[in-house]
Amino acid sequence: MTHRIEHDLLGDREIPSDAYYGVHTLRALENFPITGTPISVYPQLLNALASVKAAAALANHELGLLDSLHANAIVHACERVRAGEAHAHFVVDVIQGGAGTSTNMNANEVIANLALESLGHARGDYQHLHPNEHVNLSQSTNDVYPTALRIAAHEGVLALIEAMGVLRQAFERKAEAFRGVLKMGRTQLQDAVPMTLGQEFSAYAVMLGEDQERLAEAAALMREINLGATAIGTGINTHPDYAAAVCRHLARITGIPLVTSHNLVEATQDVGAFVQLSGVLKRTAVKLSKTCNDLRLLSSGPRAGLGEINLPPMQAGSSIMPGKVNPVIPEVVNQIAFEVIGNDLTVTFAAEAGQLQLNAFEPIIAHSLFKSVSHLRNGCLTLAEKCVDGITANEAHLRANVEHSIGIVTALNPHIGYANATAIAQEALISGTSVYQLVLDKRLLSREALDEILQPDMLAQPRAVTAARAI
Amino acid sequence: MTHRIEHDLLGDREIPSDAYYGVHTLRALENFPITGTPISVYPQLLNALASVKAAAALANHELGLLDSLHANAIVHACERVRAGEAHAHFVVDVIQGGAGTSTNMNANEVIANLALESLGHARGDYQHLHPNEHVNLSQSTNDVYPTALRIAAHEGVLALIEAMGVLRQAFERKAEAFRGVLKMGRTQLQDAVPMTLGQEFSAYAVMLGEDQERLAEAAALMREINLGATAIGTGINTHPDYAAAVCRHLARITGIPLVTSHNLVEATQDVGAFVQLSGVLKRTAVKLSKTCNDLRLLSSGPRAGLGEINLPPMQAGSSIMPGKVNPVIPEVVNQIAFEVIGNDLTVTFAAEAGQLQLNAFEPIIAHSLFKSVSHLRNGCLTLAEKCVDGITANEAHLRANVEHSIGIVTALNPHIGYANATAIAQEALISGTSVYQLVLDKRLLSREALDEILQPDMLAQPRAVTAARAI
Amino acid sequence: MTHRIEHDLLGDREIPSDAYYGVHTLRALENFPITGTPISVYPQLLNALASVKAAAALANHELGLLDSLHANAIVHACERVRAGEAHAHFVVDVIQGGAGTSTNMNANEVIANLALESLGHARGDYQHLHPNEHVNLSQSTNDVYPTALRIAAHEGVLALIEAMGVLRQAFERKAEAFRGVLKMGRTQLQDAVPMTLGQEFSAYAVMLGEDQERLAEAAALMREINLGATAIGTGINTHPDYAAAVCRHLARITGIPLVTSHNLVEATQDVGAFVQLSGVLKRTAVKLSKTCNDLRLLSSGPRAGLGEINLPPMQAGSSIMPGKVNPVIPEVVNQIAFEVIGNDLTVTFAAEAGQLQLNAFEPIIAHSLFKSVSHLRNGCLTLAEKCVDGITANEAHLRANVEHSIGIVTALNPHIGYANATAIAQEALISGTSVYQLVLDKRLLSREALDEILQPDMLAQPRAVTAARAI
Amino acid sequence: MTHRIEHDLLGDREIPSDAYYGVHTLRALENFPITGTPISVYPQLLNALASVKAAAALANHELGLLDSLHANAIVHACERVRAGEAHAHFVVDVIQGGAGTSTNMNANEVIANLALESLGHARGDYQHLHPNEHVNLSQSTNDVYPTALRIAAHEGVLALIEAMGVLRQAFERKAEAFRGVLKMGRTQLQDAVPMTLGQEFSAYAVMLGEDQERLAEAAALMREINLGATAIGTGINTHPDYAAAVCRHLARITGIPLVTSHNLVEATQDVGAFVQLSGVLKRTAVKLSKTCNDLRLLSSGPRAGLGEINLPPMQAGSSIMPGKVNPVIPEVVNQIAFEVIGNDLTVTFAAEAGQLQLNAFEPIIAHSLFKSVSHLRNGCLTLAEKCVDGITANEAHLRANVEHSIGIVTALNPHIGYANATAIAQEALISGTSVYQLVLDKRLLSREALDEILQPDMLAQPRAVTAARAI
Repeated sequence: MTHRIEHDLLGDREIPSDAYYGVHTLRALENFPITGTPISVYPQLLNALASVKAAAALANHELGLLDSLHANAIVHACERVRAGEAHAHFVVDVIQGGAGTSTNMNANEVIANLALESLGHARGDYQHLHPNEHVNLSQSTNDVYPTALRIAAHEGVLALIEAMGVLRQAFERKAEAFRGVLKMGRTQLQDAVPMTLGQEFSAYAVMLGEDQERLAEAAALMREINLGATAIGTGINTHPDYAAAVCRHLARITGIPLVTSHNLVEATQDVGAFVQLSGVLKRTAVKLSKTCNDLRLLSSGPRAGLGEINLPPMQAGSSIMPGKVNPVIPEVVNQIAFEVIGNDLTVTFAAEAGQLQLNAFEPIIAHSLFKSVSHLRNGCLTLAEKCVDGITANEAHLRANVEHSIGIVTALNPHIGYANATAIAQEALISGTSVYQLVLDKRLLSREALDEILQPDMLAQPRAVTAARAI
Repeated sequence: MTHRIEHDLLGDREIPSDAYYGVHTLRALENFPITGTPISVYPQLLNALASVKAAAALANHELGLLDSLHANAIVHACERVRAGEAHAHFVVDVIQGGAGTSTNMNANEVIANLALESLGHARGDYQHLHPNEHVNLSQSTNDVYPTALRIAAHEGVLALIEAMGVLRQAFERKAEAFRGVLKMGRTQLQDAVPMTLGQEFSAYAVMLGEDQERLAEAAALMREINLGATAIGTGINTHPDYAAAVCRHLARITGIPLVTSHNLVEATQDVGAFVQLSGVLKRTAVKLSKTCNDLRLLSSGPRAGLGEINLPPMQAGSSIMPGKVNPVIPEVVNQIAFEVIGNDLTVTFAAEAGQLQLNAFEPIIAHSLFKSVSHLRNGCLTLAEKCVDGITANEAHLRANVEHSIGIVTALNPHIGYANATAIAQEALISGTSVYQLVLDKRLLSREALDEILQPDMLAQPRAVTAARAI
Repeated sequence: MTHRIEHDLLGDREIPSDAYYGVHTLRALENFPITGTPISVYPQLLNALASVKAAAALANHELGLLDSLHANAIVHACERVRAGEAHAHFVVDVIQGGAGTSTNMNANEVIANLALESLGHARGDYQHLHPNEHVNLSQSTNDVYPTALRIAAHEGVLALIEAMGVLRQAFERKAEAFRGVLKMGRTQLQDAVPMTLGQEFSAYAVMLGEDQERLAEAAALMREINLGATAIGTGINTHPDYAAAVCRHLARITGIPLVTSHNLVEATQDVGAFVQLSGVLKRTAVKLSKTCNDLRLLSSGPRAGLGEINLPPMQAGSSIMPGKVNPVIPEVVNQIAFEVIGNDLTVTFAAEAGQLQLNAFEPIIAHSLFKSVSHLRNGCLTLAEKCVDGITANEAHLRANVEHSIGIVTALNPHIGYANATAIAQEALISGTSVYQLVLDKRLLSREALDEILQPDMLAQPRAVTAARAI
Repeated sequence: MTHRIEHDLLGDREIPSDAYYGVHTLRALENFPITGTPISVYPQLLNALASVKAAAALANHELGLLDSLHANAIVHACERVRAGEAHAHFVVDVIQGGAGTSTNMNANEVIANLALESLGHARGDYQHLHPNEHVNLSQSTNDVYPTALRIAAHEGVLALIEAMGVLRQAFERKAEAFRGVLKMGRTQLQDAVPMTLGQEFSAYAVMLGEDQERLAEAAALMREINLGATAIGTGINTHPDYAAAVCRHLARITGIPLVTSHNLVEATQDVGAFVQLSGVLKRTAVKLSKTCNDLRLLSSGPRAGLGEINLPPMQAGSSIMPGKVNPVIPEVVNQIAFEVIGNDLTVTFAAEAGQLQLNAFEPIIAHSLFKSVSHLRNGCLTLAEKCVDGITANEAHLRANVEHSIGIVTALNPHIGYANATAIAQEALISGTSVYQLVLDKRLLSREALDEILQPDMLAQPRAVTAARAI
């Protein structure tokens, strides 16, 4: 394998001739043999980095700091990165020291070499166009990296919100389909009072809708960037008009209405927006997990469980028990939720560990967030398409449970009084007789009154009870 | 000690004669001997419960479900609770099973007995006014309890936001006082580039301001209530107009612009708003902890530390080392932050464990949130008054660090080029000579040019560099 | 109220005349208005502090550093503390800055004033016996405080292990009582294969036994102390024989076989033993929570749930639903578990935040651990006495579930082959017919063979199947 | 691409002709499009699965349940897996529903097809040798999968312990090299009393040694397996002698002294051993993170920091600041620690979510543990080789700090009294004069006495002080 020589403050190193990356990337490759997973698994991040570099080149050109030749070459190279042409050259580990410097250096080097290529120069021939002096001009890792993370996270969260919409609609369709299916509601796992299966599924849809709103709010925080802050927020080595110019170009390139933070010193050290986003992702995970717990519980059986609904069978459930089918789709979503909750803790620790003018631990924050966002998205789509869409109800069983329940006694409360109702409930529990029959036997209500009170349509919503009391 | 007899489904029990609480509270007292801490440590919760009960009585009266005599007695009893007259009778443990039923029962019984007292009846004489049939009319623990939690949390969070304002202003005053104090900024604990101490303290103020905004958003979620949902959200045993009426009365009593959830089934089982609030409290804790870490680091010394600032001495720091003074106030705030982060995990677990139509674990959610909110509030006030207000700067030391720093070479970058700058930096590090002297020795810049570039006022902000390049 | 004057490096302060504590305690009281909860809520900690102070006095006396008069007075004062005579004077907040210094100072002052009292001197008359010079002689907060924490935690954990034994025995008694009760086992909430209810309860007992072992191992780590380390582990200002002497005295006083750490510098900064203990408490919490989840699930109903077992009713379950009884005892234990898991995170954060020669955050570690240990203990006893002891089984329902189950087809697998078994399972599910009947209808096995295979006693344990295969 | 047809309970599917996996694996591939990461990233798990399958075949053969032809073919196929020949065919996602069934099915299918190949049959020709009937004979996912996880975790933890040994030795070498280097120790970031840099580094070595011990204890728990439990621990469809036989074979194959759990029902549902291991990994992470925090703090500078030690430069630290070198290696280890702590939370959630006879969430437990173990291992080796080995001390600076410190006044305490010492300390702080000079000026000690007391060798260890007191 042929190679070229590149130089940094530690000395000379051989770089493979066909590598777009350079010596700084090589150092990072050697320094961080942690996960074996390169940052190229997050193409949204690479694209965001390229967008930032292009915007910087345009702003620098506009301010007279970079000539057309260099600016154009850099912008063109960034377009190639966004087209996915060089993703394989983003090789540094997702877990890395250095506050993202290695990722930024990797981007600078790849873009510089792509630009050199377009200018007809050899890779590594940096006197013509330099990774630091030109590609990174007016920039520091400390403003480039968090800005790129925000753009990538913004894109990821929007995709997640969309996937949650798919799942929400799946629940809404079931809520509509099951709107007339009466069943026993439960509190604390004990039979409570009647409701419809449609109401139950509607709640899952509404929960998702609320999480979509919270995520949209968190995504909005991603739109505040610190480009122009350079090293610590003082904007050292930037033109006074640079911050505004680069934000304008970047907003245009990404199509996101970005704004520059008012206090760049604060914005450069603060990772609060990531903590907020991670917290909302955790919230979404908690709700999704609760929903999946319910789906697994309601579909338990087939004979010795609640048996209220049926999940579509997706695969054989056992290597030993013939015919067994398990709720594997909700189970995988539960596990994604557990992972997301763990990721949030990682983000929390990394955020708390920031010191003075910078948080050096943004790489693990980014890795954790990106995993959470993409796995949640995959989980929502999988849950919608491979589970919720195929759910069916065991209507007869559900209705029988209501009719045999003791819980319907609650509806009689306003008519026969709390004391009578309690006595009926206790007798029903011990004797196994139905509440309906006991009320008739004790002549507490006429059959007609009882039938009217226990109308399915009436049990699952408020209604005026004073009139009936007269009976 | 004299006693009266009360009865529940498990049988008869003796209740101390002077107790406003009754048999259900007694059962809970015996069933939950966990922490020894009664719910009366959260007066905001007791007041909120009383507000809910009063609003329900008024709504029931308005709808013709409760006569004036009973309604007035209940409302009056609730006023006495809000006046703190019966707090000692709210005795159930802060950690309790039963989804808050024991807390609700405790409130029903205390209010019923207070009402009986005002009506001239003996405690326990429930045929005249019954804890369940009258005080709890049109209600269930499952709508009363979360509504009361929200009102109490809302009040607590507003008080926290106010305390954060006190702390933010303390930082702002220091930011103003230190605006001209030049110092070295640091990234990754390594000397970076100059900034002012005022910029550093300003960042802490801005961070707090952002957290105030996030908390205000989370507090807004507390204003959506599920009163009228009763057991599971179907509103069983409520009048169709009850939910609207009780919300209106409760908004008036509390002065909070409350609204009723659109989907009460969802609202009754979902604790997402508490998860959101807890997540934002965690975020606030993370930032406060980071800030305190910085204060402790910047004040390290007095001789072998950074020694940039001095915290006011608050107490002797050592039982063995004479004259030692420690940063005890930031330390206690760090610990509050760690507690809040742990509380958030408790909330997360409790939220995920909700099942079907109810989350039975709201009591531990409430306990965790209330601790977080009140401890954070105390921490902010303590940090402001006992620490930040008394901070002084070691200005000469800070300026000397800038002048002797290698980091100022960054500012020369646009003038002498990255290669020269790197060489100067390395020589300065090895030889111990100042960058200033080396630049002069190597005749890279004139003394005049150098002095202009390294003007303190110029180092801590962006500026146009192209002109200077010509030198 | 009368008062005396005491002095510290910040100046003079008035101390209430009847206070055993002094000026350092007063400063801490003012500096840490956080929770309102004083350290006296942990009597085990106060006793442990007194034991350490007594052991130090005896070691100092033995080494000729303290005369008999002072040593005896201190030892006697410590005995009074251990007898609970002065607990009300331990007033500093459980959450405090200063690495425990305030707690140690509080102990020094209370013990000094008790000793002065016994010597006939006035409180505060420290020239006769000084909190720092005599009570704290050869000590630093940094060895006294962690040592006291370990002794207190050791005592607490032993009490917890004992309570877990009570709960384990409750489960064992049920395992024995239910040994012949056949039921369907479940995996992934789906019907699996038969087992006995005794086996199910036996598993809970075994789990607890394993956690008892892990806790005993963690308790053993508490027995390694760093007394003699003084400030940072170098033993500055201690006699070379002091560490051994004080350990010997302390072991005798406490009855615990304590040993001194080999590397006192490490031992003084490391809180790993607390992290380990907290981690094991978390493990115990996880298991207890899982067990309580199972109990709530198995007792769900009474009509629309699994209805396999009945928990003893402990209180009315609802303020609106007559006759409803909820699993409140398992629910409260779930919540304790969630709190313990949160406490473990607090400990984790506090441990990670230690710096250089000391962890300044031991107070919150102690607070978190003490809460976890005592709440878990209360939870275990409550669960045993108020729930497990009263559990009954619905035997007929359990047996019917087995007989109607599809899962028993697994037992036929070796006899009729996996393909036939799968077909039978699917037909049974769709048609609602029993597996037993279908096997007979299809003449796959004789009734005698089938009865033998499906003998209850045979289904819940291994057995040789090759012989039967010949049928 | 050619394909074959395979069948499961959901119907027929095309499988690529060259795939060793079959229809069950295909279903899982389609059902779990979550991370895109296949289980083959954990070769230790694949090898462990192959070991289990080989041991089962041998045990089945020994008990007359499997003939030599089938047994030999299976054992040979397992050897090929362990040789890495078929790793690319283990394609199911690391996050999957189904309690590991898909992983087990993947293993059964790959091994069956490898065995068929060696027997001269086509892939998929399962009538000759069946994935379930032969490869999985006497097994269930529920005993195979956790057993394989334990073996893989055991191997991983031993490798981690070894890597920690490398790091420990690196610290020990530095402790030896720095044994004579006097420096100021610090508590709460404030100057405390003198120690040696060797003592400081020794503490890091000792901490690692203790964590190695704890990990070894946790690894021992991995050696208890539940093979023979089959579905739920009752051992259904196993020969009574099978459990003992398969354990014996597996111990021989793996070289690990495995034992069978006494209570297989408990062992099958309990993931406590994984929780314990994860908790200890978290402890290790906490300690490593604290150590890295210290290294970064001690090496802060070069001019405006503590500047006590120098970390070897590994890469350029900034894209904007020339010559800046950052502590990138400790930083990456900090981030690994944060990830491990997050992983522990994921494990905690997954463990708590287990229900009744099985924990369906073992896949995410495994994924989390495997990441933690391997990343910690990589982190330890990286920290040793790329950081600790190259650390140097700034001895003159360290000694100057001691000599100018106020903290040495503590050593004078026994000689001049606490009151004099406190006054000296305060005067030194305000005046900037050295303690040494002030003591001489005030004629509190002779120069000879002072020099003797302040001998470096004497300051960092206990010594008898009574004699010196006479001065």
